[in-house]
Amino acid sequence: MSISPDDPDLTLDPSDWDALRARAHTMLDAALEEMQRKPGGPVWQEPPEALKALFDRDLPVEGLGPDVVSQDMQALLPHGVGNTHPRFFGWVHGSGTPAGVVAEIAAAAMNANLGGRDHGAIYVEKQVMRWCRELFGFPEGSSGLIVSGTSMATIIALKAARDRALGFASRTEGVGAARLVGYTSTQTHACVARAFDMLGLGSDALRRVPVNAAYEIDTTALADAIARDRAEGLTPFAIIGTAGSVDLGAIDDLAALARIAAREDLWFHVDGAFGALAVLSEQLRPRLAGMERADSLAFDFHKWMHVNYDAGFVLIRSEEAHRRAFSDRPGYLQGATRGLAAGNPWPVEYGPELSRGFRALKVWAQIAEFGTARFGALIDRNCAQAAYLADAVRADPALELMAPVALNICCFRYLAPEAMAAEQDHLTEELVIALHLRGTAAPSTTTINGQKAIRVNITNHRTGFADLDLFLEEVRAVAADLIAGMGRNTG
Amino acid sequence: MSISPDDPDLTLDPSDWDALRARAHTMLDAALEEMQRKPGGPVWQEPPEALKALFDRDLPVEGLGPDVVSQDMQALLPHGVGNTHPRFFGWVHGSGTPAGVVAEIAAAAMNANLGGRDHGAIYVEKQVMRWCRELFGFPEGSSGLIVSGTSMATIIALKAARDRALGFASRTEGVGAARLVGYTSTQTHACVARAFDMLGLGSDALRRVPVNAAYEIDTTALADAIARDRAEGLTPFAIIGTAGSVDLGAIDDLAALARIAAREDLWFHVDGAFGALAVLSEQLRPRLAGMERADSLAFDFHKWMHVNYDAGFVLIRSEEAHRRAFSDRPGYLQGATRGLAAGNPWPVEYGPELSRGFRALKVWAQIAEFGTARFGALIDRNCAQAAYLADAVRADPALELMAPVALNICCFRYLAPEAMAAEQDHLTEELVIALHLRGTAAPSTTTINGQKAIRVNITNHRTGFADLDLFLEEVRAVAADLIAGMGRNTG
Ligand SMILES: Cc1ncc(COP(=O)(O)O)c(C=O)c1O
Ligand SMILES: Cc1ncc(COP(=O)(O)O)c(C=O)c1O
Repeated sequence: MSISPDDPDLTLDPSDWDALRARAHTMLDAALEEMQRKPGGPVWQEPPEALKALFDRDLPVEGLGPDVVSQDMQALLPHGVGNTHPRFFGWVHGSGTPAGVVAEIAAAAMNANLGGRDHGAIYVEKQVMRWCRELFGFPEGSSGLIVSGTSMATIIALKAARDRALGFASRTEGVGAARLVGYTSTQTHACVARAFDMLGLGSDALRRVPVNAAYEIDTTALADAIARDRAEGLTPFAIIGTAGSVDLGAIDDLAALARIAAREDLWFHVDGAFGALAVLSEQLRPRLAGMERADSLAFDFHKWMHVNYDAGFVLIRSEEAHRRAFSDRPGYLQGATRGLAAGNPWPVEYGPELSRGFRALKVWAQIAEFGTARFGALIDRNCAQAAYLADAVRADPALELMAPVALNICCFRYLAPEAMAAEQDHLTEELVIALHLRGTAAPSTTTINGQKAIRVNITNHRTGFADLDLFLEEVRAVAADLIAGMGRNTG
Repeated sequence: MSISPDDPDLTLDPSDWDALRARAHTMLDAALEEMQRKPGGPVWQEPPEALKALFDRDLPVEGLGPDVVSQDMQALLPHGVGNTHPRFFGWVHGSGTPAGVVAEIAAAAMNANLGGRDHGAIYVEKQVMRWCRELFGFPEGSSGLIVSGTSMATIIALKAARDRALGFASRTEGVGAARLVGYTSTQTHACVARAFDMLGLGSDALRRVPVNAAYEIDTTALADAIARDRAEGLTPFAIIGTAGSVDLGAIDDLAALARIAAREDLWFHVDGAFGALAVLSEQLRPRLAGMERADSLAFDFHKWMHVNYDAGFVLIRSEEAHRRAFSDRPGYLQGATRGLAAGNPWPVEYGPELSRGFRALKVWAQIAEFGTARFGALIDRNCAQAAYLADAVRADPALELMAPVALNICCFRYLAPEAMAAEQDHLTEELVIALHLRGTAAPSTTTINGQKAIRVNITNHRTGFADLDLFLEEVRAVAADLIAGMGRNTG
């Protein structure tokens, strides 16, 4: 091997800083250019074989060097998910910002570990924490943590709920035979059951309560379920409300849930992955009434605030319950009163991660640069766009709206001719695949009451109303093609 | 509010792309300059009040705009943890690279969500996965996931172990009355007990087996503990070995642990947060023999591979056990065979997170650019430096080595004069705080056999031998000052 540990110049810093600088600036230009160009190109394209080959190399013993790496990364730039494009309507992805790239440059160079200690980066996360508290009307004594997303936020919140219900003995003794049960609606996101699984409670301990016609939890059925479980000797411990359901954007009656939780002495958690930020809209805020009474709230910055991936948040009313569910610093992490090891309490006392990157900076930068009003207006516009699309769907007999538009999601389908009714779901799926392959738009699919739907989720600051017109034209054109093709195959 | 959702120009993209570009390039120059300048300045400095004030603002309704945000971020740049400095010896922090900044630019601009789907970024993570498999001699059928760090990797690995032990029924039914117990040494990292807590098993279900004089797990005591627990009707399910203990860098006899685990039919997990990457050194690799037989391995790229924070990995021998512990895709996430929703299986089937940022790119870039041999040489050098420091400590009667140097960590103390023996721990703590405050070096402290130690961990590609000389000179000078001061106070 040509590399010796005795070489005093051995390091991962460049020997030529100017060359490094030039390379970094070139990458920055290429990256920003791709962001600027993206709206005019395809939403998505199938990763070409030549691209895949770049990432199918042998493990390099001798490095490939900076030039090859830069070239490969530039080749990769156009092959993202598509969520920076104005006609990306799939899943619930935020669209990112070029401003976020600027923040990430600073964060990457600082290379801070936010597990704890007393340094500048920690103050940025504390600022984000205070802003979140204010945003959601949580009290002074509440606590929070920036995490990768709502899935992790939900695990943290429900762990605090679990441990408080068991007097925190669960931390050392396990959940054992305690028969804890929690409640949510049938529309809840999969991450809630996943959290029950992770935490050792089992996903069956999460009761899925039916919903009303608006896909909101049926609060009478909820109260009945709690009473039934208590009668059977189980221990209800948590209600999980949804502010913006993933399939349809439905918002549970959070005030009613808060009342039931208070009456029954249960932890009230709200999954507001995207919908919670609708508080930023004057118009929508009243629909979230009750959320401010939650014991915990999980939501994402990378969805409706368009912070570049990934960044979510968990907000917990009782700092004490939060800390008691996570804190136990080992000897080598004891905080000092002065110096670098000061700054108590440390973030590690509020979640399962020790090493934590500097996500806080891009979140701070996004809120600080744009201000909350702009996000509110963008959220309003996305909701108006979903309603606009629904109107267009209703106006076209070839299309069928599959559910009411509650917020920013519109689910519909293109009706197959009667002779092909048995292939309706197949048509819906093929239609979405064809749209992806053509690169003109990227909706996703979901299943509503057993039937496949084209799901258009608009959490996109780049989408214009004209994009929706164009999208519907494409849907009609592609459907006609597919139906003609299916006719030939079956005929 | 002056911002209207009806404004067709409303977006988070810049109205002036050239201005955005200029701003981004200025930030890049400032960030790289700070990285280049850092080694000549203080390791750490107390965050000044003026800096804290920048991050103690009211929630902005109208944004502060790009200029204020850029200025504030530039002011923040010098106030990191200090781990980009050659004399940062605290905790186990990697030092980051300017090359990592280049990769982060591309990743931030792509804004990819790696929860799933078929797009370029996914192939980068798959490449990292294959390289890890090769690096650690794991078989073809093994699986893995990039995560935030070893803490999360440990939770994922032990969840797979937990669920396999319970026939995966635990996912729906919870851990219930199953009395699972696992085994590790007294030197294990706190994240292991934390994982037991998270997973509902309780931290008491983790048995801490004593260590030998080299701080490695006592395998006879381990076998006895397993037998004892079985006799008492408990269900042993996992052995957790350590490859590089956090306090002292000790490496358990992993081959012996693999044998015991095989014989007892237990899951064998290795915590190799930093130490696992010692396989990259020809010299050190033999000491990790047995690691390639683990059922799971957790380690970090942000430690001894210096990938900019944060990035860790979990590698699992049985893809099936891994997937069965995490997979359950809801309707709206069903993968397609073609189009953007293809690319099965998705990463979401291997961990608790759904949305996942593009950490894979910086990991890929680091390995691809530098190659494995260079990391091996740097790891060798860090170990040689710890040994060098230990020699210097042994040669100075004022200093006391607190434990043998197993790898890259040297723990010692400055002996208080006999009259101040009662204040020995106080002296050790004050010495470390004083070093932080002077900005000349940043070791941490830990407790060894009840006594405080200065802990010097060298996972730093910038540290030179001269840095260690300078560090020891500082220790002596600061200790003399402190002792003089303490003499005055008590005298
Ligand atoms: C309602 C809801 N909850 C939870 C999640 C999971 O969030 P994340 O992907 O950030 O983990 C989502 C994601 O789309 C969601 O829409
Ligand atoms: C041996 C060991 N295990 C686990 C961890 C936790 O790793 P992370 O901070 O990446 O979660 C550390 C961190 O220093 C460690 O040294």
